[in-house]
Amino acid sequence: MKQHTHRLTFRTQGKGLVPITQPVLDWVRETGVFTGLLTLWCPHTSCSLTVQENADSTVRADIATFFETLVPEENGRYRHSTEGADDMPAHLRTMLTQSGLSIPIIDSEPALGIWQGLYLFEHRRAPHQREVVLHLFGT
Amino acid sequence: MKQHTHRLTFRTQGKGLVPITQPVLDWVRETGVFTGLLTLWCPHTSCSLTVQENADSTVRADIATFFETLVPEENGRYRHSTEGADDMPAHLRTMLTQSGLSIPIIDSEPALGIWQGLYLFEHRRAPHQREVVLHLFGT
Amino acid sequence: MKQHTHRLTFRTQGKGLVPITQPVLDWVRETGVFTGLLTLWCPHTSCSLTVQENADSTVRADIATFFETLVPEENGRYRHSTEGADDMPAHLRTMLTQSGLSIPIIDSEPALGIWQGLYLFEHRRAPHQREVVLHLFGT
Repeated sequence: MKQHTHRLTFRTQGKGLVPITQPVLDWVRETGVFTGLLTLWCPHTSCSLTVQENADSTVRADIATFFETLVPEENGRYRHSTEGADDMPAHLRTMLTQSGLSIPIIDSEPALGIWQGLYLFEHRRAPHQREVVLHLFGT
Repeated sequence: MKQHTHRLTFRTQGKGLVPITQPVLDWVRETGVFTGLLTLWCPHTSCSLTVQENADSTVRADIATFFETLVPEENGRYRHSTEGADDMPAHLRTMLTQSGLSIPIIDSEPALGIWQGLYLFEHRRAPHQREVVLHLFGT
Repeated sequence: MKQHTHRLTFRTQGKGLVPITQPVLDWVRETGVFTGLLTLWCPHTSCSLTVQENADSTVRADIATFFETLVPEENGRYRHSTEGADDMPAHLRTMLTQSGLSIPIIDSEPALGIWQGLYLFEHRRAPHQREVVLHLFGT
């Protein structure tokens, strides 16, 4: 049983889903692990991880609209507003999605379904440099 | 340290919680692992995993009502509607719950609390064949 | 590769976020693990785990207000009410956050970002005794 760790860096373009499946797959293959457990960790409090349909761009638009409604950015709604009107909603959207994902590796690949893609979910309006920490153990 | 993987299949009857604790427990026992880490992965984008009270059926009814209100199935609300009015809400409900769960194994059992049950949460109206991928490592 | 397990106990003071980062860090250091995977499991159905900004108390106040609005405690709203008006909302808030977190250990510490803190999120009004199960494997 061996362990591997890595960090991926992504440049986000403001709010939205950034696909990260391919660089994650590439790294898993490089390690040579055939069976194991992959963990992704997002070390930020205003972006998160999610698993979502990997095909249709209207899905992404609906996700954006839904989260704007669920966690509104209204002025005066939050006490914590010194970092901008989008900061507190970003924290709440992070809580409602995932900071970490652990996925079995089978036959050298994460056991994702055919429609599943991995995404970094940026919740801030401004572009950001973001990291995802990867941990993999297996044989 | 040994690794074990498995796939469980469930037939859902439309929207709702399907209890999966027992088949998961049975498989863990079969592996003979005493201490370890169990990971469940749901390889679908319109059903998910959740941990919930395992006793009271009114809890399940309230969960159903809550998610219908939180993520409504109104016609015209979503751009992504070609797969049916329940498809986009299913994606969103999946995002708000879990695609994966990792649970410590202690004394040959997942460290669930006395009231905790594991559930597959079907978000589509029609019955579906669903899989849960299991990964277990330990001693 | 070695495994370690532990249980932490916390006394909550009614609803709100209880910081648990420090006792988790302390235990990880005691194990001597340098690289590995840490899993936290909350074996309850009316409190949960979350990762959140570790600095500003107004963030915590906004989180409290947000969840009161998202999952209201109105009388008559839920069928499951025998255990109190705060019980069914507690189950739903648990579903919308996390029962478990798995975090890579790098250089003897969880790979948390500089602003990330680990919290037990109590959803009941009354003080409770709560447990968090810890599992760590690594080298």
